[in-house]
Amino acid sequence: MASQQAKENKQPNRISEYCAKIVEHKAFTTTVITFIIINAIVVGIETYPNVYQTYTSWFYYADITLLWIFTIEIALRMIAARPTYTFFKSSWNWFDFLIVAAGHIFVGAHFVTVLRILRVLRVLRAISVIPSLRKLVDALLLTIPALGNIMILMSIIFYIFAVTGTMLFADVAPEYFGNLQLSLLTLFQVVTLESWASGVMRPIFAEVAWSWIYFVLFILVGTFIVFNLFIGVIVSNVEKTSKDEDDDNEAEMKNEVRELRKEIAELKNMMIKMNKS
Amino acid sequence: MASQQAKENKQPNRISEYCAKIVEHKAFTTTVITFIIINAIVVGIETYPNVYQTYTSWFYYADITLLWIFTIEIALRMIAARPTYTFFKSSWNWFDFLIVAAGHIFVGAHFVTVLRILRVLRVLRAISVIPSLRKLVDALLLTIPALGNIMILMSIIFYIFAVTGTMLFADVAPEYFGNLQLSLLTLFQVVTLESWASGVMRPIFAEVAWSWIYFVLFILVGTFIVFNLFIGVIVSNVEKTSKDEDDDNEAEMKNEVRELRKEIAELKNMMIKMNKS
Amino acid sequence: MASQQAKENKQPNRISEYCAKIVEHKAFTTTVITFIIINAIVVGIETYPNVYQTYTSWFYYADITLLWIFTIEIALRMIAARPTYTFFKSSWNWFDFLIVAAGHIFVGAHFVTVLRILRVLRVLRAISVIPSLRKLVDALLLTIPALGNIMILMSIIFYIFAVTGTMLFADVAPEYFGNLQLSLLTLFQVVTLESWASGVMRPIFAEVAWSWIYFVLFILVGTFIVFNLFIGVIVSNVEKTSKDEDDDNEAEMKNEVRELRKEIAELKNMMIKMNKS
Amino acid sequence: MASQQAKENKQPNRISEYCAKIVEHKAFTTTVITFIIINAIVVGIETYPNVYQTYTSWFYYADITLLWIFTIEIALRMIAARPTYTFFKSSWNWFDFLIVAAGHIFVGAHFVTVLRILRVLRVLRAISVIPSLRKLVDALLLTIPALGNIMILMSIIFYIFAVTGTMLFADVAPEYFGNLQLSLLTLFQVVTLESWASGVMRPIFAEVAWSWIYFVLFILVGTFIVFNLFIGVIVSNVEKTSKDEDDDNEAEMKNEVRELRKEIAELKNMMIKMNKS
Repeated sequence: MASQQAKENKQPNRISEYCAKIVEHKAFTTTVITFIIINAIVVGIETYPNVYQTYTSWFYYADITLLWIFTIEIALRMIAARPTYTFFKSSWNWFDFLIVAAGHIFVGAHFVTVLRILRVLRVLRAISVIPSLRKLVDALLLTIPALGNIMILMSIIFYIFAVTGTMLFADVAPEYFGNLQLSLLTLFQVVTLESWASGVMRPIFAEVAWSWIYFVLFILVGTFIVFNLFIGVIVSNVEKTSKDEDDDNEAEMKNEVRELRKEIAELKNMMIKMNKS
Repeated sequence: MASQQAKENKQPNRISEYCAKIVEHKAFTTTVITFIIINAIVVGIETYPNVYQTYTSWFYYADITLLWIFTIEIALRMIAARPTYTFFKSSWNWFDFLIVAAGHIFVGAHFVTVLRILRVLRVLRAISVIPSLRKLVDALLLTIPALGNIMILMSIIFYIFAVTGTMLFADVAPEYFGNLQLSLLTLFQVVTLESWASGVMRPIFAEVAWSWIYFVLFILVGTFIVFNLFIGVIVSNVEKTSKDEDDDNEAEMKNEVRELRKEIAELKNMMIKMNKS
Repeated sequence: MASQQAKENKQPNRISEYCAKIVEHKAFTTTVITFIIINAIVVGIETYPNVYQTYTSWFYYADITLLWIFTIEIALRMIAARPTYTFFKSSWNWFDFLIVAAGHIFVGAHFVTVLRILRVLRVLRAISVIPSLRKLVDALLLTIPALGNIMILMSIIFYIFAVTGTMLFADVAPEYFGNLQLSLLTLFQVVTLESWASGVMRPIFAEVAWSWIYFVLFILVGTFIVFNLFIGVIVSNVEKTSKDEDDDNEAEMKNEVRELRKEIAELKNMMIKMNKS
Repeated sequence: MASQQAKENKQPNRISEYCAKIVEHKAFTTTVITFIIINAIVVGIETYPNVYQTYTSWFYYADITLLWIFTIEIALRMIAARPTYTFFKSSWNWFDFLIVAAGHIFVGAHFVTVLRILRVLRVLRAISVIPSLRKLVDALLLTIPALGNIMILMSIIFYIFAVTGTMLFADVAPEYFGNLQLSLLTLFQVVTLESWASGVMRPIFAEVAWSWIYFVLFILVGTFIVFNLFIGVIVSNVEKTSKDEDDDNEAEMKNEVRELRKEIAELKNMMIKMNKS
């Protein structure tokens, strides 16, 4: 009975090993990337109504085929991972899994737009499949937590100016400061410096003479914080890399000095021996 | 009588100690932050006229309650500080105190807008209450004095261009260069590169052929200075942090070398002894 | 016969040597730069229709003359290079060759605009002729491959947003999102923050209430990536230069320490000898 | 006779010494700054036509007075400099001299605007008088020569695109590309990203389908070069400062190591002596 169980254990293992071989094969990633590119092209052509309306059924089958190819790909990778739950330890695998799973879940849904957006999002899988892109995005995402505090600060400033703006200009410029949401959107526009004067401030300024204080203050504070947010990222990046190098150099130098010390210690011992003799 | 005075001294001390215990309790800061968030939400809902007009009295009582909660909070922190005047040594405490005191002073005033802005500004207290945000803002404000000179330079450039602009274009574009204040505002808009050509220059350029010199010159000089202002901050930041690290490393290395020297000195002494014997 | 062949070999060598002398002469580069500047001026004056229509034939002869001067210049440099094919090892030489060759190929063509643009592009030869500019452009171009991955990432993000944008807003704003190409152009405009709100978003926002999510998301993601692309270049530049310097310093220090070690080794040997004696 | 000449030589020296005392007195700079500020205020008030027309004569006398005060100031500083021509060794002194001299030269001229601009430019003297500002501007100007090559490159790119733009779009958008000067101005606007799409490109794009290539190419090349120009300045600044510090540290370390070597050399000598004895 024990041997039987061992057999049963072995069989999935054998399958798992077989899958792992496939998954780790060079051609596997290339094939997946190829299908992602095909998916991207299909999704791109779909945006041309003439083509789409003529070949609707063709696009339907292409989509189903691609969905199943990706499903098989992820199934293979899931089986190759031993034990299977380790597959879900990587957030990139979760990402792949959810994108594909959502394709199956919504397949019968009436929200055509949601389905089409899901198909477009599959192109994002290029990032999770190409290792160098994955590393890059991981690095980019790692800079975000360091910005936590400055983001909270930004939110507080945005909220205070949005509430004040709504209070002050709701009647003068309902298009920009009609309610809290509109004010937040307008402030986002202002902080990107897009038409802040020509579009937003000047019409209000024509009616409320002191309104320039609000805008100039917000631009000074807002861009100052955004700018410091940028500096933070630059400095921490420069730091990290230069620190790594310096550390290497320093470690080497310290080793050299330690060696020197050892040799001097030896010398001392020899001296002591000489003295004794 | 001396003991009586001691008693009198002790009593406030006991209260002070009690307050200090409350203030230093973990839950204290959390509670204050909670009330600040409630204050923020209340102030946000107030901007919707429908809600506000239906529940005006409700908002009135919420405001009074929050004002008194913050008053008690600051009173507690003031008593906890021993002696009391040390409370006012921190500019953040001044900030907290003034924001709340102003709420009491203007309570009966007719300037409804001022009162409402004060209520919104209480949200800023989130910065003074959350230590990490306070540190961040302290750090941001510390970069300002280093920019003193470049700010003065910027002001001189702005003033000269504003006076010249008013002189030259007051008749052509009264909306932008009608008087000194308008010119300063327009120059601020130009330095943010917002509609400087499409909105400000092109209409003037259509009438005054050489006006482009004024704008191109101002943009070159202005953005050059603003850019150097930014560089100044970046460089000084990179400097500061990398210097700190380098200093640590250097100090370590120097210690190692010093140790080496000591050992060599010992060796020398041993030699000298040997020579003598 | 051998001597005859040697002679034949020698003759072109002699010509080649003679050409090399001309090409390496100080005045050569100066002359070429002068003709490039003349070419630039001619091409500039040509844009004034009044002047051009009066002196069309004059411009025709000027162009032919300049084309032949540049042809001779490149021929000389080609002969000076020994063996001739080494001339094509430098991509700058290819650039020079193609610009001039294209002038000859299209000379009889009816595409007047193409010919005129070719004449303008000859001004670009200033870069390949002036060594300091050539080095600068080489340095600038060297920063591009380091940006490969982030460029691919940017392309994926652009493509996904372009497809989604076309799907969602093709009917609402055909001018901006009518088809895939238009969407890509619009997204390029949005990522430069030019009229993204006043021109592109607000009209769409008036009809599709949730459209702001699309734009805010794209701006956050797009500018974040562009910004990181910039940081990458800055950091790698700072790194490279500071590393070079540090390496120099470190190398010097290591030499010093190595010398120290040698001397201590000598000391040890002397000790060992003493012990033996 | 010799003594007489000595006397003659002495007298101007005594005056010179007296002037130097005045010029070097603390109150001197303060006084000059005060008059520059008064000049700035006067010039500012002049821009208000109501005030100016009422008190025209008053402004006239204020101007004459200030001009003579500055003349005396510069005369004093010129006499204090011994020998006098050393005064003109500083380009800041030239600047001061020319600003004031121009005031005298144009005093009777009919170009009222030129005279008024001269009066405004006197405010710039604040930079030459306040030492910290003077140092700052010197530092800013020093970054310019390092940008020489990239400026030439930028000019070439601008020129080529301006000529091409005039050739291609002169008929389509005469307002923006009507002639070479207009094209250069438009390209300057485009490189600041101001209304490049909404104002400049979209109207042209509506008529010339491939025009987007021109603009996208120019923006990519232009902003890339401008960005590298910025990086150049940042990197060279970070470099310079960090190099200075590192050099200090390195020098210190090298001294320590040299000391070590000396002591080891001493040890060796002692050994050699011992061996001999």
